[in-house]
Amino acid sequence: MTTPLRVVQYGLGPIGLGVTRFLLDRAPRLQIVGAVDVDPQKVGRDVGELAGTSRVDVVVRDRFADFQDVDCVIHTTQSRLADVEPQLMEILTTGANIVSTCEELSYPWHHNPQPARRIDAAAKAHNATVTGVGINPGFAMDLLPLVMTAPVHNLRGIEVERRVDARVRRLPLQRKVGAGLTTAEFEARVAAGALGHVGLPESIAMIAAGIGWKLDRITNRVDPVVTAAGDVAGLHQVGTGILGEAEVIRLSLTMAINVDDPVDRMRIEGDPTFHVEIPGGLHGDVATHAIAVNTVPIICGAAPGLKTALDLPPAHSFVP
Amino acid sequence: MTTPLRVVQYGLGPIGLGVTRFLLDRAPRLQIVGAVDVDPQKVGRDVGELAGTSRVDVVVRDRFADFQDVDCVIHTTQSRLADVEPQLMEILTTGANIVSTCEELSYPWHHNPQPARRIDAAAKAHNATVTGVGINPGFAMDLLPLVMTAPVHNLRGIEVERRVDARVRRLPLQRKVGAGLTTAEFEARVAAGALGHVGLPESIAMIAAGIGWKLDRITNRVDPVVTAAGDVAGLHQVGTGILGEAEVIRLSLTMAINVDDPVDRMRIEGDPTFHVEIPGGLHGDVATHAIAVNTVPIICGAAPGLKTALDLPPAHSFVP
Repeated sequence: MTTPLRVVQYGLGPIGLGVTRFLLDRAPRLQIVGAVDVDPQKVGRDVGELAGTSRVDVVVRDRFADFQDVDCVIHTTQSRLADVEPQLMEILTTGANIVSTCEELSYPWHHNPQPARRIDAAAKAHNATVTGVGINPGFAMDLLPLVMTAPVHNLRGIEVERRVDARVRRLPLQRKVGAGLTTAEFEARVAAGALGHVGLPESIAMIAAGIGWKLDRITNRVDPVVTAAGDVAGLHQVGTGILGEAEVIRLSLTMAINVDDPVDRMRIEGDPTFHVEIPGGLHGDVATHAIAVNTVPIICGAAPGLKTALDLPPAHSFVP
Repeated sequence: MTTPLRVVQYGLGPIGLGVTRFLLDRAPRLQIVGAVDVDPQKVGRDVGELAGTSRVDVVVRDRFADFQDVDCVIHTTQSRLADVEPQLMEILTTGANIVSTCEELSYPWHHNPQPARRIDAAAKAHNATVTGVGINPGFAMDLLPLVMTAPVHNLRGIEVERRVDARVRRLPLQRKVGAGLTTAEFEARVAAGALGHVGLPESIAMIAAGIGWKLDRITNRVDPVVTAAGDVAGLHQVGTGILGEAEVIRLSLTMAINVDDPVDRMRIEGDPTFHVEIPGGLHGDVATHAIAVNTVPIICGAAPGLKTALDLPPAHSFVP
């Protein structure tokens, strides 16, 4: 029998609690040995009860410390690297590997090279591996299209479209996409950097690094999806990678409460040109929970340092 | 600038010549420094001219020897591991890495564990890495469905369908699939092991190893595709992976000259269940040439030993 991997769940928001439920399902292969959250309402409670399953005799603590022999921490707190860097650094000093859902960590080398270098150095110093994962960024709009170029010669362009029905998603996502705002409120929040999917530039940078396109420009624009009645239903965000005069990467993301045709679709242009379609699309929350859990064995077997999906064997599901 | 990788092309049949053309397109990133084939009609000729491009001042030799500082050999000779093992062993003694299109090498650990162990040991002894690649086995019916399980929890089954229009493929494939035979000839050749796609059991074994399904049985059955007139148009091959009473893996491959709806399609059953479709399907020859070339940088950066797609970062296209 394979030795169980000892996992700590760090961050118990909606994503963290979803991950916790999946972690508990993967026993005995994965064993939850600790849980961390800063919320005083959660500290001291049993993490199984908090996640809506049965008691597991793992009590939520308010900080990451005193955990013994941890193989991997699943870290699900914030989206911005500047916010999570101190948390990651503290975990790394214990030598634990980290799978984080921090969007900016999915491919930090282009937009955040200095924190990336610091995290990489700390990981190597403590013989640990750290990576950022998720459905988007991390899979649907970067890794998967990259994998789809394996059978292609003379690659000329990659176009990805993701349409998400925000109605079937958790409430924070509906707020996150701006549903219910006026267009003026929407534009103001976009201008303040408080609205928009985090990670599209990271996806473009990851694709470009993999292919070897030395982009001249990465664009990223967020517009409201407006209903006939003039209400904001969500967002439409387009990111592009420009090489010389050519748009070689185009990522188009729509997340709104009026998307009736959710889909993940990509077009790979080269020899041959073809497209790939996932009707209905990949569910963002469940998919991110699953990818985080499915990456644990991969990260526990990898060489030390900060890794991206370009460096690691592909994550896949596994039975307990 | 990235240092060029020095590549030898070993085997100059239809696949090897296709790979050669793609290799030449990837200069200066990849540099062809040698070519090998046993055919006296090819030995002594310029490999560029043989591949139908311009002269490249690389002369075809009849054996692999005396090549200096080779980073990678692309090996495209035979489908069966027993046939290629001596060739691989000879290459490995020079310390060169190997990307091979040998079908049985794509996942040899289940059906050919002893040669796999010998090749792994030789590779490690000479600090080299070796892997088997291709569109099928190696991508469309194993790696790609595995990658598609990354966002899935409670995985219950994987079903893959590949329908190939053999009319648009090279003549050897049309023969390989039995087109033009009588059904009696077809059945006799299947019984003699002389007809049928090589690699379906390998694909099933690779998926099962990745997921951790300890299969009770792998099945593999080849039937003729028969036209209304009673002629054999090609083959329909089905492989399954059985766990207890459940069929958890089903791979269905049709290659025939009357396939009007070529497609690659997979269904992933779990939380969530979804399907993925590539209308038109991935062209087998071009795709295999491209995957071989696209794997060269991956294999040159990997740890020594015999690796499968489960162990390596995913191959993807790259610009010269």
